[in-house]
Amino acid sequence: AWADSGVTAYGVIDTFATRIAADGLAPVTRIDASGLLASRLGLRGREALGGGLRSGFVLEAGMNGDDGSGADGNRLFNRQAWVSLGGPLGELRLGRQNTPQFYMNGKFDAFTSATQASGWNNMYGAPPRIDNAVGYFSPDLGGLTLQALVARGATGGAAPLDETAANRNLQLAAEYEHPGLYLGANYQQVDNAALPYRARRASVGASWTFTPRWTVFGAAGGERRSDGTQRTMLYSLSLRWRADGPLALAFGWAGLRDRLTGAGHGGAAELGAQAQYRLSVRTSLYGALARLRQYDRRNNFALVGAAVVAPAAQIRSPLPGGAIDGVQLGVLHTF
Amino acid sequence: AWADSGVTAYGVIDTFATRIAADGLAPVTRIDASGLLASRLGLRGREALGGGLRSGFVLEAGMNGDDGSGADGNRLFNRQAWVSLGGPLGELRLGRQNTPQFYMNGKFDAFTSATQASGWNNMYGAPPRIDNAVGYFSPDLGGLTLQALVARGATGGAAPLDETAANRNLQLAAEYEHPGLYLGANYQQVDNAALPYRARRASVGASWTFTPRWTVFGAAGGERRSDGTQRTMLYSLSLRWRADGPLALAFGWAGLRDRLTGAGHGGAAELGAQAQYRLSVRTSLYGALARLRQYDRRNNFALVGAAVVAPAAQIRSPLPGGAIDGVQLGVLHTF
Amino acid sequence: AWADSGVTAYGVIDTFATRIAADGLAPVTRIDASGLLASRLGLRGREALGGGLRSGFVLEAGMNGDDGSGADGNRLFNRQAWVSLGGPLGELRLGRQNTPQFYMNGKFDAFTSATQASGWNNMYGAPPRIDNAVGYFSPDLGGLTLQALVARGATGGAAPLDETAANRNLQLAAEYEHPGLYLGANYQQVDNAALPYRARRASVGASWTFTPRWTVFGAAGGERRSDGTQRTMLYSLSLRWRADGPLALAFGWAGLRDRLTGAGHGGAAELGAQAQYRLSVRTSLYGALARLRQYDRRNNFALVGAAVVAPAAQIRSPLPGGAIDGVQLGVLHTF
Repeated sequence: AWADSGVTAYGVIDTFATRIAADGLAPVTRIDASGLLASRLGLRGREALGGGLRSGFVLEAGMNGDDGSGADGNRLFNRQAWVSLGGPLGELRLGRQNTPQFYMNGKFDAFTSATQASGWNNMYGAPPRIDNAVGYFSPDLGGLTLQALVARGATGGAAPLDETAANRNLQLAAEYEHPGLYLGANYQQVDNAALPYRARRASVGASWTFTPRWTVFGAAGGERRSDGTQRTMLYSLSLRWRADGPLALAFGWAGLRDRLTGAGHGGAAELGAQAQYRLSVRTSLYGALARLRQYDRRNNFALVGAAVVAPAAQIRSPLPGGAIDGVQLGVLHTF
Repeated sequence: AWADSGVTAYGVIDTFATRIAADGLAPVTRIDASGLLASRLGLRGREALGGGLRSGFVLEAGMNGDDGSGADGNRLFNRQAWVSLGGPLGELRLGRQNTPQFYMNGKFDAFTSATQASGWNNMYGAPPRIDNAVGYFSPDLGGLTLQALVARGATGGAAPLDETAANRNLQLAAEYEHPGLYLGANYQQVDNAALPYRARRASVGASWTFTPRWTVFGAAGGERRSDGTQRTMLYSLSLRWRADGPLALAFGWAGLRDRLTGAGHGGAAELGAQAQYRLSVRTSLYGALARLRQYDRRNNFALVGAAVVAPAAQIRSPLPGGAIDGVQLGVLHTF
Repeated sequence: AWADSGVTAYGVIDTFATRIAADGLAPVTRIDASGLLASRLGLRGREALGGGLRSGFVLEAGMNGDDGSGADGNRLFNRQAWVSLGGPLGELRLGRQNTPQFYMNGKFDAFTSATQASGWNNMYGAPPRIDNAVGYFSPDLGGLTLQALVARGATGGAAPLDETAANRNLQLAAEYEHPGLYLGANYQQVDNAALPYRARRASVGASWTFTPRWTVFGAAGGERRSDGTQRTMLYSLSLRWRADGPLALAFGWAGLRDRLTGAGHGGAAELGAQAQYRLSVRTSLYGALARLRQYDRRNNFALVGAAVVAPAAQIRSPLPGGAIDGVQLGVLHTF
C-alpha cells in the first residue's frame, strides 16, 4: 500500500489562453494545456534496500486540462514509467524515461525550455522521452554527473515500435554544476526503421548567475541526418531576472542556421519574453510573448509549450518563410 | 505532493442489474454501470492564496464498474478537468467542466435526475459538460447565485472539436436557495460546426420541502433548433419522501410536447419510481421502475442513468411510438 | 474521500529483459513488462456495514512499465472493477473480475503460474477475467471454500461483447486448504457468439509442503471445444525450494497431450526453472529459463509471463513443431 511504502503522488495542472497569428492563416484564439509545465499526475517511490542500495520508480501520466484528454493516445504513463536500482556507483533505470537532453533543456535557457517564448523548445528537435530504455546516472563526481541511455523503441508520443536494432537510441550526457554555474553537453543518435536516415544531435549549454537576480543562459545544438536532408545549427541566448518577491522575468533570442537549401529549408529566429508571478509556492500566473520568423522556404516550426501540443493541433504557417506571433496567459497549479 | 497540499481523492462505484423491454425488441437483461451516481475517480484541491484569493482544481475520470472501461473513449478525465482562481467577486474555472444545466438537473426532480426513473434525465437534451470552457460562479448574493459559461469545443463525450467560433457554447444560469425552497433558471445556446443548426434551450425548475419528509419538484424546459427541426417542451413533476431512517422514495412524471410532426416526431411521457436504502453513509442499495411511452413517430428515447450509457449500448425501440419499460436494482459505493 | 474511508492504493511495477529464440526466427532481445507479477495500479476498499455485513470494491488497472502503455486498449481498469456485498453466508461481487481459475493458477505450480518458466501458464487456455460477472465466494467451511461465477461478456482483454446468453460464462470452483496442503478443482464453460463452439475446461491441482523448504505441485487440466476442434490434456509437475534467506527456486515440467491431429495440432512440453531473490519485502530480482517444445504441427504457443503480452507482440515459431527457448531477468517492485 502506498501509505506504508513512502510513495508520493503529485500533479500539475497548467491551462492557458492563447492567441496565435501565423502568416497565411486567420489568427486563432483558444484555450490549451501545459504552457509552462506539462500537466500531469505522477507517483514516485524510493526504498532503501540496505548496504547503500536503493530501488525506486516513477509512473507519470500527462494530461490536458483544457479537455481532460490524456496527453498521449498510445500510452497512459506517457511521460515516465520506470523502475530503478541504485547504489554507490550510480543508478540504473529500466523502462520509458526522459532523455538526458530533456533534463538539460530546462537548464539551457531562461524559459526553462517552456512557453511559446522558448526558441530552443520550439526549434530543437531532440525527443523528450523513449520507450524500452536502460538509463544510467552516475553519482555526483565533485560537481560532475554523467548519463547514458540505450533504448530500442519509439521516441516522444509515437506509436510503440518493435524493439529491434533498427529502432535504437543511444545518448550520452555530462553536466557540471558549481554554485552559480552550470555546464551541460549531450550527444545522441536516433534510429527509426521507418525513416531513411539516422538522426544525430549534439548540444552544449551553460548558465551563469552573475548577480543574485540575473542569470544568463547560452546554448548551441546541431542536428544532422545521415541521408543529408538535415544539417542545422541552433543558437540560444537568454536572460532571467528574479525579484526578491514573486516575480520572475525572462528574455531571449534563438536563431537557427540551415546549411541546406530547397523545399522546407531556411533559417529561423525567435524573440521571446516570459513572466511568472507566484501567487503561492504552488500556484502561478504566467504570460509569454513570442515572435518566430522563418526564412527562405522553411515553414515547419510552431509555437509550443512545456508539453508539445498534439501535432495535428499545432498552428503552422502554410507559407514558405511564414512568421508566427503568439501571446499566452496561463494559470499553473501544482499539487 | 498530495499529502502536503490538501488534495482529496474520491470515488464512486455504482453497478446495477437491469431488465429493459422495448417494443419491437426481445427484453434485455444485463449488468451496467452508473445508475444513481456516475462511477468515477476524482481528485480535488483547494488552496488559500491569502487576501481572500484561492485556487483549486478538479480532475474527475468516469469509468464503468461492469467491465472496467473508461466512460469516454476520447478523454481520461472526461467529467471534469479544470483549474480555478477565486476571490470575493466569485470564481473563474478554466477547462472541461460541468454545465450549469448539469448542476441544476440534480435539483430539478426527485430522482436527482438519475436512474431510469427520471424522465427529465431521459428526455432533456442539454449537454452535461463542455471542453475548453471559461466558467464563472458568483458569490452567494443573499441566496442568489449566478453562473455563466463560454466555451468553444465538444459537448458531452463527443470527439474534441476545433476551438472556433462555429463550435461555441454560451450558458447563463441563476439559482435561488432559501431553507426548504429552491429555484433555478437556465439558458444555453450550443453551436457545432458539423451541425446545420444552433441549439437553444431554456429551463426553469423549483423544489419545495413542504413537510420534513416530503419535497415536491417541478421543472419545465424548451428546446429549439434554428433550422426548425426541433421544437419541444418538457415538463416534470415529482415527489420525494425521506424516512428518518435509511429509506428514501421518489415518484414522478415527465411529459414531452412536440410542436412538430413527421419522421421522428411525437410526444412522450414517463412514469417513474425510485427507492434508495442506505446501508451506511457510503453504501446504498437502490431500485427503480420506469415506464416510458412515445407517441406518433417518436422513437429516439432510451432509459439511461446517472452517466449516459454509451449510445451504441442504449436500448431504443425500433418502432415509431415504441414504449420502453425498465427495472433496475443496484449497489452504490462511495469512497 | 479515500483517507476517511479506509481505501488502500497499491501497485506493482515489474520490468524484465529477455532473449527469446524461436525456431524459424532470429532471436529477439528486448525489454518487456510483467514477468513475475502483472504491473498494475489498484485501489481496494472494505467497509463494515454492521450486523456482520460488509461492502467493498477493487479497481485495478494493468500497465506496462517498459513503455508506459495501459495493459488493455479496451479498458482502463482491465484487471478488476467490481463492487461487493458480503456477510456470514459469503460474498457477492458484481462487475469485471478474476475467474476462479485465475486465482487457482497461482497455486497450481511452483512458478505461481508466472514467468516464461511456467508451462501451465503458457499452455492452459482458461481466461483470467470476465466482464459483467456475478461472482460468489463462500465463507470458509472448515478449510473448504466454494466459488461460482456467471457472466455475459468478453473474457481476457477482448473487446466488450453484448450481454446476451450467447456470450455466457459459467464457472464453478472448490478449494481445500489445510496447513501444508492445498487442493483445488475448477470447471468452466465459455460461450462467445462470434465463435462456432462452446469451450469447456476442467482442472484439478494440488500442492504439498513436505519439508519446511520444499513444496511439490501437481495439476491437470482438460480443454474441449464443442465443435470438435480442440481436445487436449495438460499436466504439470513442479517443485519449489525456499531458503531461510531471500532466495526461492522453482523447477518444473508441463506436458500437453493433443488427441487430435492435423493443421495446428500436436503435443508440447516445457521445462522451466525460476529464481527469485528478495532485496526487501517490496523489491525482488528474478530470473527464469524456459525450453518449450512443440510437436507435430503445433506452433501456437509462446513464452509469456504474469500478464499476457499483447498477442501481436508474443513471439511464436512460424514452423510446425517449432521450439522456443527463453531467458529472462527482471526487477519487481511493489508498493
